[in-house]
Amino acid sequence: MNDKIIITIAREYGSGGREIGKKLAEKLSIPFYDKELITRAAEESGIDPDLFENADEKPSNPFWTSLAFNIGTFSSHNPTMNDLPMNDRLFLIQSKTIRKIAQEGSCIIVGRCADYILKNEPNAVHLFIHSTPEDKLNRVINSYGIPSEGAKEFMKKTDRRRAAYYDYYVGEKWAQMEHYDLSINSSTLGISGTVDLIFEFVKMKQNLQR
Amino acid sequence: MNDKIIITIAREYGSGGREIGKKLAEKLSIPFYDKELITRAAEESGIDPDLFENADEKPSNPFWTSLAFNIGTFSSHNPTMNDLPMNDRLFLIQSKTIRKIAQEGSCIIVGRCADYILKNEPNAVHLFIHSTPEDKLNRVINSYGIPSEGAKEFMKKTDRRRAAYYDYYVGEKWAQMEHYDLSINSSTLGISGTVDLIFEFVKMKQNLQR
Repeated sequence: MNDKIIITIAREYGSGGREIGKKLAEKLSIPFYDKELITRAAEESGIDPDLFENADEKPSNPFWTSLAFNIGTFSSHNPTMNDLPMNDRLFLIQSKTIRKIAQEGSCIIVGRCADYILKNEPNAVHLFIHSTPEDKLNRVINSYGIPSEGAKEFMKKTDRRRAAYYDYYVGEKWAQMEHYDLSINSSTLGISGTVDLIFEFVKMKQNLQR
Repeated sequence: MNDKIIITIAREYGSGGREIGKKLAEKLSIPFYDKELITRAAEESGIDPDLFENADEKPSNPFWTSLAFNIGTFSSHNPTMNDLPMNDRLFLIQSKTIRKIAQEGSCIIVGRCADYILKNEPNAVHLFIHSTPEDKLNRVINSYGIPSEGAKEFMKKTDRRRAAYYDYYVGEKWAQMEHYDLSINSSTLGISGTVDLIFEFVKMKQNLQR
């Protein structure tokens, strides 16, 4: 496929969204960004990657007023940026990296409100991967190595944090189908079936773009 | 395709969900039920079709306690059924018709909480069709013939009624991706593209069932 395609993947913890994204990227031969995004944002900004890692997908403070409506007005050259809490600064730098990556060419970006950051990008499709509670729990314990005791709580907590992160930076509720072109239950077709379905979807979308 | 497949389609008003279902049914050569469900439920119960029509996708009283947890315990032979408000009785009769249709063979059923009624049916896939506000408004005015003045309000009201109906009978929030195998924005691929995508999805699901 030669046409540019940007795919953002939001995902419930344990849904296999990352694995689906990675396999899809291989199938499409395009770059894949999950944690890789942090490395790149750190490199480009000269900021310690550990700071990015600590702030990753965490809101500055979930009780604060939403930052969503300010995102567009900030840039790293804006002097008021330095007055922002560290997590917000990192979010804005990361957003800039996301936009830059999308400009460079086809890619898959997992999480980090990329659907919102790239919502006006004409070549982008936005996906959400969810799954049944049983499959998620099973994956979290058996693939991610989370101890079974407390795994359910850890899963819930991770999704709550992602929801708070989205809510804080986007100003909207997380995991709402209206933000996505396709929301897929990965339990229905399994990981490789879901990859195949998205692949078909992408091909159809690219045919329309031509 | 010879394998049995039950497809339920929930949809936002104006998303083209009905048209997608109808075209998909033709492509799969399987029966399609939207308003047809009412006719059949009326025929089988001997109840005036106008009563069904009036109650169609309307909750008995949105302020009442949810009926969801009682559905399983009622049947038309249950003497307490006669004590229920008319809309609730019709809902239960209609639910029975939905289960009967699903038993008979492959089919597509639009709306009427069919995803919930058939949630334990192993051959079923549950879809939700949504769309951009612009496309919905355009379709409502230009295809459904709703006067442009007030079309937006009519659209919102219809979806609010569907949400109340779902909430009342299922006891859960409408239009939540977790209830569906696939939630699709029909604006992305258009009506025929969306039909093609679901067709691929159904083929993949059937291959897994074999």
